[in-house]
Amino acid sequence: MPKGVAKMNAQQSSLCVNGVDTAVLGKTVGAIKEDPGLGACKFRVHNTWAGSTRNSSSVLDFYGAKQEMKHTRTFVMNADEPPMLAGQDAGANPVEYLLHALASCMTTSMVAHAAVRGIRIEELSSELEGDIDLRGFLGLSAGVPKGFTNIRVTFAVKCAAEDMKKLRSLAEFSPVYSTLTSGTKVDFDIVAK
Amino acid sequence: MPKGVAKMNAQQSSLCVNGVDTAVLGKTVGAIKEDPGLGACKFRVHNTWAGSTRNSSSVLDFYGAKQEMKHTRTFVMNADEPPMLAGQDAGANPVEYLLHALASCMTTSMVAHAAVRGIRIEELSSELEGDIDLRGFLGLSAGVPKGFTNIRVTFAVKCAAEDMKKLRSLAEFSPVYSTLTSGTKVDFDIVAK
Repeated sequence: MPKGVAKMNAQQSSLCVNGVDTAVLGKTVGAIKEDPGLGACKFRVHNTWAGSTRNSSSVLDFYGAKQEMKHTRTFVMNADEPPMLAGQDAGANPVEYLLHALASCMTTSMVAHAAVRGIRIEELSSELEGDIDLRGFLGLSAGVPKGFTNIRVTFAVKCAAEDMKKLRSLAEFSPVYSTLTSGTKVDFDIVAK
Repeated sequence: MPKGVAKMNAQQSSLCVNGVDTAVLGKTVGAIKEDPGLGACKFRVHNTWAGSTRNSSSVLDFYGAKQEMKHTRTFVMNADEPPMLAGQDAGANPVEYLLHALASCMTTSMVAHAAVRGIRIEELSSELEGDIDLRGFLGLSAGVPKGFTNIRVTFAVKCAAEDMKKLRSLAEFSPVYSTLTSGTKVDFDIVAK
């Protein structure tokens, strides 16, 4: 475990497992059980094209617990493509951001669900690799999918041996994992500026 | 159009449309047409848990054009959750990264495919919003999906009026759009560290 994490865990109360305050999570669960409408969330980004293959998203507000909420600050995410894909490598590319979304969501889902079950995780990292055939994106072959055909994830975890087998089902709580494996509806409009 | 974009476009050759060097794209298309195996790409991230709901991905290498390739530098992406979700807001959360991946991919797909068709785009921005019901993630209701049930995207574009209606099918070339709307296979293993 990184030193900072160990220190944080040590400083926190007994309700804190894996650095997650299970009292906060428990309160959220209790409130949503009582009023299911509190579970509805809307997450948002605003994206601006910056020329060529560069663009930037900002994230500030979201909707949750029946109210408009704000992050403590605006987060900015820059995307570009490598020279091979006609870009200038000013940022990770969109499909790499998708893999990050998956890695981070499965990690947080595993850690938080482990916490509420009293499963202590000491270290956790992951390697992800996904396959895309450019013939799809470039429109060279109608039979070739445009997106990822397969994503492989390997998590390396340090925890008690008897807890290892419990982690798999906890990772599957991940909203991004669920979105990617089940697919989702994406509606889009294009309007004049 | 931002001043920098206008300047860049003005400085570039006549093969450059929307800041995209269509000669580079044309070369890629030609090479893959000749040898379809060149289209196979593998994109990767490495993620490390940093305690609580914080984790960080790094991106450096990828596989494309039948060889291992490297970005010009390592890109780092930090994720966290807002206090409402037991985090400390040290970064955008995983589902917001997913929305950014979608926004950036649809934007780049539209811009690049417009470029090779000679469609000039002057300005382009987008607003995305996606719905998630926390009851799914929290395991409170088996019937509630864990992931996004619907994502709405609105693109605002400045371009010639007669080109507006051509953009919709270009955005649909996006690999992330395709992955999200069709779903993909995600295989994962959990091994001891």
